[in-house]
Amino acid sequence: MNFASDNTGRVHPKIMAALAAANEGHLPSYGTDPITRAAQDRIREIFEAPEAAVHFVSTGTASNALALSLLTPGWGRVFCHENAHIQTSETGAPEFFMGGGKLLLVGGEGGKMDTASFAHALQTYGDASVHAGQNSGLSLTNGTEAGTIYSVGEVRDLSAMAHDAGLAVHMDGARFANALAAQNTSAADATWRAGVDILSLGATKNGCMGAEAVVIFDPAKSMEFEYRRKRGGHLFSKHRYLSAQILAWLDDGLWLELAGHANAMARALAEGLAGIAGVAIDQRVETNGVFVTLPQAAVTRLVAAGASFHYWPEPAEGDASVSLRLICGWDTRPEDVERFLSVLREG
Amino acid sequence: MNFASDNTGRVHPKIMAALAAANEGHLPSYGTDPITRAAQDRIREIFEAPEAAVHFVSTGTASNALALSLLTPGWGRVFCHENAHIQTSETGAPEFFMGGGKLLLVGGEGGKMDTASFAHALQTYGDASVHAGQNSGLSLTNGTEAGTIYSVGEVRDLSAMAHDAGLAVHMDGARFANALAAQNTSAADATWRAGVDILSLGATKNGCMGAEAVVIFDPAKSMEFEYRRKRGGHLFSKHRYLSAQILAWLDDGLWLELAGHANAMARALAEGLAGIAGVAIDQRVETNGVFVTLPQAAVTRLVAAGASFHYWPEPAEGDASVSLRLICGWDTRPEDVERFLSVLREG
Amino acid sequence: MNFASDNTGRVHPKIMAALAAANEGHLPSYGTDPITRAAQDRIREIFEAPEAAVHFVSTGTASNALALSLLTPGWGRVFCHENAHIQTSETGAPEFFMGGGKLLLVGGEGGKMDTASFAHALQTYGDASVHAGQNSGLSLTNGTEAGTIYSVGEVRDLSAMAHDAGLAVHMDGARFANALAAQNTSAADATWRAGVDILSLGATKNGCMGAEAVVIFDPAKSMEFEYRRKRGGHLFSKHRYLSAQILAWLDDGLWLELAGHANAMARALAEGLAGIAGVAIDQRVETNGVFVTLPQAAVTRLVAAGASFHYWPEPAEGDASVSLRLICGWDTRPEDVERFLSVLREG
Amino acid sequence: MNFASDNTGRVHPKIMAALAAANEGHLPSYGTDPITRAAQDRIREIFEAPEAAVHFVSTGTASNALALSLLTPGWGRVFCHENAHIQTSETGAPEFFMGGGKLLLVGGEGGKMDTASFAHALQTYGDASVHAGQNSGLSLTNGTEAGTIYSVGEVRDLSAMAHDAGLAVHMDGARFANALAAQNTSAADATWRAGVDILSLGATKNGCMGAEAVVIFDPAKSMEFEYRRKRGGHLFSKHRYLSAQILAWLDDGLWLELAGHANAMARALAEGLAGIAGVAIDQRVETNGVFVTLPQAAVTRLVAAGASFHYWPEPAEGDASVSLRLICGWDTRPEDVERFLSVLREG
Repeated sequence: MNFASDNTGRVHPKIMAALAAANEGHLPSYGTDPITRAAQDRIREIFEAPEAAVHFVSTGTASNALALSLLTPGWGRVFCHENAHIQTSETGAPEFFMGGGKLLLVGGEGGKMDTASFAHALQTYGDASVHAGQNSGLSLTNGTEAGTIYSVGEVRDLSAMAHDAGLAVHMDGARFANALAAQNTSAADATWRAGVDILSLGATKNGCMGAEAVVIFDPAKSMEFEYRRKRGGHLFSKHRYLSAQILAWLDDGLWLELAGHANAMARALAEGLAGIAGVAIDQRVETNGVFVTLPQAAVTRLVAAGASFHYWPEPAEGDASVSLRLICGWDTRPEDVERFLSVLREG
Repeated sequence: MNFASDNTGRVHPKIMAALAAANEGHLPSYGTDPITRAAQDRIREIFEAPEAAVHFVSTGTASNALALSLLTPGWGRVFCHENAHIQTSETGAPEFFMGGGKLLLVGGEGGKMDTASFAHALQTYGDASVHAGQNSGLSLTNGTEAGTIYSVGEVRDLSAMAHDAGLAVHMDGARFANALAAQNTSAADATWRAGVDILSLGATKNGCMGAEAVVIFDPAKSMEFEYRRKRGGHLFSKHRYLSAQILAWLDDGLWLELAGHANAMARALAEGLAGIAGVAIDQRVETNGVFVTLPQAAVTRLVAAGASFHYWPEPAEGDASVSLRLICGWDTRPEDVERFLSVLREG
Repeated sequence: MNFASDNTGRVHPKIMAALAAANEGHLPSYGTDPITRAAQDRIREIFEAPEAAVHFVSTGTASNALALSLLTPGWGRVFCHENAHIQTSETGAPEFFMGGGKLLLVGGEGGKMDTASFAHALQTYGDASVHAGQNSGLSLTNGTEAGTIYSVGEVRDLSAMAHDAGLAVHMDGARFANALAAQNTSAADATWRAGVDILSLGATKNGCMGAEAVVIFDPAKSMEFEYRRKRGGHLFSKHRYLSAQILAWLDDGLWLELAGHANAMARALAEGLAGIAGVAIDQRVETNGVFVTLPQAAVTRLVAAGASFHYWPEPAEGDASVSLRLICGWDTRPEDVERFLSVLREG
Repeated sequence: MNFASDNTGRVHPKIMAALAAANEGHLPSYGTDPITRAAQDRIREIFEAPEAAVHFVSTGTASNALALSLLTPGWGRVFCHENAHIQTSETGAPEFFMGGGKLLLVGGEGGKMDTASFAHALQTYGDASVHAGQNSGLSLTNGTEAGTIYSVGEVRDLSAMAHDAGLAVHMDGARFANALAAQNTSAADATWRAGVDILSLGATKNGCMGAEAVVIFDPAKSMEFEYRRKRGGHLFSKHRYLSAQILAWLDDGLWLELAGHANAMARALAEGLAGIAGVAIDQRVETNGVFVTLPQAAVTRLVAAGASFHYWPEPAEGDASVSLRLICGWDTRPEDVERFLSVLREG
């Protein structure tokens, strides 16, 4: 009954098997090996982007911060949702890699900005100037930190506004597989065809050990990325082990299968919760997270039964009802969901 | 016959097995899991440093750059050998993480500074001042980039000079295991008892997949390291897989066994080379690297026979003799060495 | 009729005279001259802070950004009002000098946060953590960007909350003289006795050519400031000319006299405006700025009559009424105010 | 008898007069005033570079560091002489503004690199790569820190080598006026026609109060410079006072007249010194500095007589002879030189 995070889970057996298979003989280091080339090619194929530059790193924070640093000078300003992971949970990594660039916060329900809130922020923060800084980027998280998704149309509209304002578009895709699995669309339609310039494509949360891809749809920026990655200490020497994870994760659509399973578990959990008295679902459940408010007494029972989760936000002393984030992963089992619901129903 | 780099090799089977064993169930993320605690404790025990802070990252560049940034403000100056990896091969990562700090170069034979060359550099660069900057660190690589080692006495003397000059001491131990295996001493004697303040302890080159430990003998700096690691994008989410590598690598002295084997292969290679006409050994062979100069014709034969290595330095067009770096790893086999020598002897 | 900015004005004749008087013979450079020492001592005396470190720079942005960098590591977070100059008008200088630190925005009427809005922000952004960053500073602007002031009691209450939360307190005093002249209090009571740790004391807007003092009440940080100032390119070589401005500005209370005059002109302007139909005063007028909303037609007349000012904010095409910022300076004459009011009254 | 530095001197009366003349009425701030435009135009005219971008800052360190940051990314490498001011005396400001870029040191007699020593350095540091970094700039100081000059031909040859190697060329012209006054050439021939891409044109040492121009011969970089200047805290608000200095300094060739005088005084000093027994001139005297070695006893007499200068380098306890740097300025009088020589001759 671990619903704490998709980072507490393990590595999918097929990915472990790929690591074992890659563990033969000598191969060139630093990303010049054939496994890396194969993984890069596979991503270009899936995204129908034969010219895209594709590079791998081992953490999501590195992926986001390096990607943003390609879009934004040290005097630049990047718009993002006020709950974006790059703002709340990366300890200034974006600012560090951008060389001091600034994140400007946009409001919006369900972890999403919309064209109105983005327009409002553009007006609030005003035009670029030597006093204000250069407006340089928009970062959208898809799937969002609130378990919701931006539709292809929403990405297209926000990207168009961004491009009109001179901003390049980054997508934090830590849960891009979950977002894609939740929609009837293609990887290309959900990204570059909708205006995304750089995608941070997350694999760690979705079955890998520690592997993320940065997909740069304008290949002219590729060499700069390579310099920045090395300078950030993010160029793996035994690079095959990074690439082998990605390759296995993409093979036969495993990435979408795992994400789809996690989404289905979250949906089942949400449906069960909706039928329990005193429990309120706080956000639309579109990917693998369920945000819920319920009585403190129920939470006490869940803890006693061994359930894991994060309070969202931290409750104050004596609150009668508290809010939780429940995350499902590729390895969440129907019986975990069922048992969680049972504990609540017994109340 | 791959002598290109200790980064082209594979992961030791025991370490692969440890990764598989760690791949069970849910564990807390971001370094709060029991495997991480066990690996940290094991290092404290081996280094007889019960209070030391121990943190893990996945690349040597991150390990060095983060360690240096703990010692040096952005206006600081760190002395290192002119051939140090932090100067020649890390694309400004130390300067980036230090926030602009400067590396000051010290000469010396065999990839090593000595007390005379260090004293000369201290005098050349002069006292700290608001115009010159703050003298803040000394970084020693052990084993060195030239296949040699600093003895315990040499580390002690250089560290004492550094401390007298107000400098903290960092050791780039990308090949610390090789240096330790080559000497009859303890990990503690070779580091903190000799004056080392922070050790970047490399495991990747010596059988791991991508795992390095930073050992901070003054634990007061631990939290700062954690902030810096996260901000650098170097905090692994599924952290158990970093720690499991380290733990297996240290288990039953595997780290020293592997390093000792690599050293022995280099020694065998050097001994064989020494008996071949026209071949000159350029550096003392004390760890796992052999630096050698030989006729171009011999190199052509080696290439034809499938040998891999790096030119050191790049030869100019038409040079009659060229210089090579030959690196042995934990997985170098006696028959690789023998075959390499045979090709040369057949000339 | 120039109400555009206190930066468009000239240098007070007494300060020009002091520069001429300082222009004799040779003096040590880089701040080791007697004029600098005298100016530092004068500030220590006025602030009743005999131990304070006092350093001079030539721009307000440098003063703020360097001061903040003393309080905040690159992974730190500084709370400030959402309209603070450091957030809106310094192009990322604070982030650059802090090495990537983050500004967290606090709301509040009249350009001021209050204990409720600050408490709300502290709760919103949460505790320091390796994921969120280190909460390190609070920056208050006094007089504010909206022409208002924080009372001594308000500074004391906010500083106490900040210190309780582990934050150090910076005051952006670009218009500190105006704030002090508006209150019946001492420089010490308005700063360190109320909890301010570092003051950026502005003189440029108030009669100097380009001179600002940074007053660091904890002298242990003095040398770090000196390194940071030099590294930022802000250590004047012919330093006497910076210090001579400050000394003359403080002499015989000139600084408060000039600020008091500017405040009085703003008050007179506001009183006149209040009596004109269709004109609304938008903020309490407590220092030298008047924020006013009036019909577009009136503004057209003002422009035709040669008045200068900034729109605040930029009006949209076709707005019937627009908002202006009117700034008075030490050199604003009663007849400028009168003529401005006359143009409006004639409407 | 002050030969300590050209920074200990005062401001030329014509420049003081220009500041007084500029002190009238209101003018737009932040560099949009007519005095600034006039000063920019004057520089474009003198350098026969009608398209060049020209911006002003107040310190030489800011001028150099900002200029270098235009040429060099954070992973870049800039070649400079080992005694260059940017390496020895700016506390890491270049590295800070470049975002971590690296200075690579080139040897050479008389404070100058030559084509051989530069070629040697290019070979030593090798090609750009993702491991080594990007070779991006060459910085030449003219006049040099050793009182010598690069001839137009020397600048042309070194710049051509730099451009061939993909490096842009910066000239640290803190004493460019002295170098120009010493040669029969034009400002254009000595800079962009010889291959210089950006010039830091120093005026402070040569009669100004604190004013330096950055001349960017490729105007496409102008806006980036403006962002960087503001972000560095180097955009003066009351900008007219910076520009008025530059304008008066250039008027009627005052800059070359003052530099020529300083050079002549140095030449007279050197000629006198050459005739005194036991005194050795250490460098060719081509601008306004004289580097000399003489007996300790003579130095003691000079000190007793009230002479000021810098030891170069710091002598060790008990040295029989010591070395000095003697700098002449626009305000050095023939009688100062004569008295200095007299004290020595009396020995």
